[in-house]
Order: sequence, then structure tokens, then C-alpha cells
Amino acid sequence: MPENESHERTTVSVIGLGQLGTRLAQAFLAAGYATTVWNRTAAKTDALVAQGAVRAATAEAALSASPLIVVCLPDYTTVRDLLEPMAESLRGQVLANLTSGTPEEAVQAAGWVAGHGGDYLDGAAMSGTRLVGRPEALFVFSGSQEAFALHRAVLAGLGNCVHLGADPALAPIYDTALFGLAWGALAGFYHAVALVGAAGVDPGSFAAVATEHMPFVASLMADHARQVKDGRFPDDDGTVEVHRAAMEHLVRTSRTQGIGTDVPELFKALLERAMAEGHGLSGIASVIETITKGGRNA
Amino acid sequence: MPENESHERTTVSVIGLGQLGTRLAQAFLAAGYATTVWNRTAAKTDALVAQGAVRAATAEAALSASPLIVVCLPDYTTVRDLLEPMAESLRGQVLANLTSGTPEEAVQAAGWVAGHGGDYLDGAAMSGTRLVGRPEALFVFSGSQEAFALHRAVLAGLGNCVHLGADPALAPIYDTALFGLAWGALAGFYHAVALVGAAGVDPGSFAAVATEHMPFVASLMADHARQVKDGRFPDDDGTVEVHRAAMEHLVRTSRTQGIGTDVPELFKALLERAMAEGHGLSGIASVIETITKGGRNA
Repeated sequence: MPENESHERTTVSVIGLGQLGTRLAQAFLAAGYATTVWNRTAAKTDALVAQGAVRAATAEAALSASPLIVVCLPDYTTVRDLLEPMAESLRGQVLANLTSGTPEEAVQAAGWVAGHGGDYLDGAAMSGTRLVGRPEALFVFSGSQEAFALHRAVLAGLGNCVHLGADPALAPIYDTALFGLAWGALAGFYHAVALVGAAGVDPGSFAAVATEHMPFVASLMADHARQVKDGRFPDDDGTVEVHRAAMEHLVRTSRTQGIGTDVPELFKALLERAMAEGHGLSGIASVIETITKGGRNA
Repeated sequence: MPENESHERTTVSVIGLGQLGTRLAQAFLAAGYATTVWNRTAAKTDALVAQGAVRAATAEAALSASPLIVVCLPDYTTVRDLLEPMAESLRGQVLANLTSGTPEEAVQAAGWVAGHGGDYLDGAAMSGTRLVGRPEALFVFSGSQEAFALHRAVLAGLGNCVHLGADPALAPIYDTALFGLAWGALAGFYHAVALVGAAGVDPGSFAAVATEHMPFVASLMADHARQVKDGRFPDDDGTVEVHRAAMEHLVRTSRTQGIGTDVPELFKALLERAMAEGHGLSGIASVIETITKGGRNA
């Protein structure tokens, strides 16, 4: 038996060594956890074995080597096709699936694993691959609360791991929603960089101030979430009407500077729809009701 | 002479006691600085005088009482109409104007103050009124570097005061750009709250995770600003094509959940324009070029 290819028990197994899977395995190793790895193309395990990982000869060996199995494959069909023939080895194991998928796929996968006597966690890496292993790398998990509690310390080797609830659908729902949130912030930032750039401002100088502004914006999110829950939209952060006027100013300034106006025009359209729905004197978070109703009016 | 209405020298004078001006004066007082206040409707000074402020009998008295004059009025025309008759009292003084206006108005105001022997700072309060006086309240200033250096400690009583450069236009430019940035993040957040809300997720629970995600998003801003400066868009955070596919997934999920799709559809349109401009395999920050060119193609 080759060195480091054995049936020895390890703390965690990582199946699927693409860009993310490799970083996950590296993070577990760096945190000091005995880690078994398997990949269809075995060459991808070489660097990890050099860092101390145990190479499993087969996926089934990886599945049996550790009480916690982290899977990171291209899609849920690949996961199912790989694990189906060895499903009996899931008994008593925890499968943490970081493959990207839909809420429906997560629910199906959880049912399938439970049907074979295993515990299931669906997960999503929210901070790309570069930060994996650092405390600020956000991972969201949903599914078995007990499985998460049992392996919380090991998973913490990946970063800031948050358990969202027992419904396995929650991780992919948050994944999709947080992707949209990140894009909102980035689109606002990209527009802002184009705007100040037209006035000769260095992007890095602007980014330094912009990142100092984000904690305030994040504090508004927490306040506005409370308002949605209460169903009341006080105007502490300005009314919809006042923001519409300021947005009109941003549209005009963007036009004057010769850059695209689509981003502020979308925000203006949202504010105008909120006004049409009677929210002119409400706080800006009332726009959430406009978006929620948007599907019905479409 | 009534109590607290005198010609005594103070550290700072605040002219214009609307919602923001009142909070500015309170912050200076709370930081221990002798503060003169004036407002056209004198009744607005009562509460501040009770907190230790000196009431100026006239705007001119307020202008002469302190080396630093903070002005916060409805618009630049009001500032000019008020100060024009007493412009000679500007000599040797620093006027920090936190009135909202355009870059052109800021440049005009700076020239006018300089013409009367004063120093000018244009400023903008970026964190609303509630945080004023706390270290996380962001204020941006532009104009005289010397004036800012001279009064930096006093201005720090308002919060985190950043000097952007000698061009007085910079504060209103940043003000407008940061407003758009904040709206991008909020629109992304509002869409996300509507999306997870349709799946029964509590807005507060989502906001708690969302705010933990924002530091990562802010770190992307800093990275992407460097990319714009370098004119190179590596795909470390995913290519435009990959993000377009994920955005299509967000659009479909939003439609399935019955909420409005305008927000992700805008982002998808930006990504598709970037692809049409040959950026499909570039990193997502290349969208900034698409926005910059947007005005020319419109």
C-alpha cells in the first residue's frame, strides 16, 4: 500500500478537489485536522498529500474514512451518481455538501442521505476561494442541527460557519440572495467608480472612503430589516420622495459626466413605484414591499 | 445682555440649525468645544443654549465669534444671501459648508470666500444625522488643506472626518457617488430580503448574515479599484460569463418566488453588455468600463 494511502481514520474527508474543494482540504490541514482526500483525477491529490493529507484509493474509502464528509462537485447530479453505488456507507456519517445547487436539490439530497441513515448539511461558500481558512470567510450551512453542532469545531477551520436552520433549502436560498446583495453593492460601487473617475478621482482613493462607508450602510440593513418585520417604515433615513429627488440628481450628474445612467435609473424607478404605491412619505425600506409585489404586477 | 448671548470667543460657530445643524452643534458641545449657534428662527437655539451653547444675536456675531464657522442651510443660494452682506467678516476665518450642493456650487463658494480673505472647506455628512458625534459617522471634506489641518481636532468631534483633496468639488462629487453606492447595496439588500421573505425567512435573521457578508464585499471593492487602475481584470472573483449565468439563476429564482426581477435583470444586462464588449472571460470589475462607456452609447 503506498504511503499515505490507507484505511486510517481521519477527522474529515474531502471529495472533489476543484478550486474550492482543494482550498477546503488545505484549510482543514492548516487547522491541524487529519484529512482524507479523493478526486476522480488522482493527480489533483498530490499537492495535498505533500501537505499531509491521506489519499483515499476510492471514493468509498474516503466516505468511510471520516465521520464528516465534505463534498464539492460540479453539480448535484454528479454527487448522486458518484455516491449512489456506495450509499450504504453513508450510515452514521455526516455529509456536508458544498456543491452549488437549488433549494429543491438540497431538500432531495437531504432526504436521500437520511434514507441511507446519514445526516445531511447543505452548505455554500460565500467569500470565494481566496479567503478560505481565514476567520472572515463566510460559510452558510442548513440541515441537521445535531450534525452541525457535532462538527462545528472542524468546520470552523474553514472560516466563519453559520448554521441557518434545519431546512436544508436555506443554504442555497441564502447563497442566491447573498449573491444578489453582493451584486447590488458592487454595481453601486462600479457606477460610483465610473462617476468619480470621470471627474479624475483615483479609483483606489475612492475605494478607501467607500469601504469606510460600508459599515454605516450595513447598519441601515439591520435597521430596515426590523422595519420590514414591524411593517412600519419611519423616515429616520429619509423619505422615498427625498431619495427620489436625490436619485434624480445622481442620474443628471451621471449624464453630465458622460457615463451610463442605468444603475441610478433603476433605483429611481423603484422609488417612483414605491411613491405610486403610496409610500412617498414612508422611509426608503418600503421599497422592499414594491419589490415583493413586483412579481404580481409583472 | 441676556445670559449666554455675548460676543465671547468660542471654538466653533454653527449657522443653520435644521436637523443636521442641530446634531452638529450638539456633537461639538458633547466633545467639549465652546460653541456659538445662530438660526434665523431663534427658538431653535433654546435647547442648545440649555446644553451650554452661546447664542449669537446675529449671523454676523456668529461669524465673528469663532475661527471655524460651520454652515448647514437648505441650499447654496441661502448661504450666499445670508453671508453676502457680512462678507468682510470672513477675513481670516474658515468656513466649513455642509450645505448640500453641486461640485460647481462648491467651487463658486470657495472662490467667493477666498475673494473675501477666508478659507473654505466643502463638506458632506455621509451617515445621516443619527450617528453624528460617533466615531463611525463619516464626513468628507474638500478644499483648503491648511484649514482642515488647523481644525481637524474640532471637526473630529463630529465623527470620522476625511479630507479628500484641495479641489472643493470633491466633497459633493463623493457625496453623490457614495449615495449611489449606498443605494446599490440597499437595493441588493431589499431584493434579497424580498427573496428570502418569499421563502419564509425572517428579515432580521437574513440581515444578521448579510451584515457579516459586507466586509467581504467591501474587500472586493478595494481589489477591484486596483484592477481599474491597472486596466487589467483578472478572474480571481469569477468571470463575467460565470456571473451572468449565476445572475440568470437569481432572475429565475426571483420569478419562481413571485417577486420583482428588475434588480437582478439590471445586473444581468450590465454583465451581458460587458460580454458584448469582449469581457466574457474577464473579471467582473470590467463592468466598470461598460458603465463608463454607457453614456457614449446611449
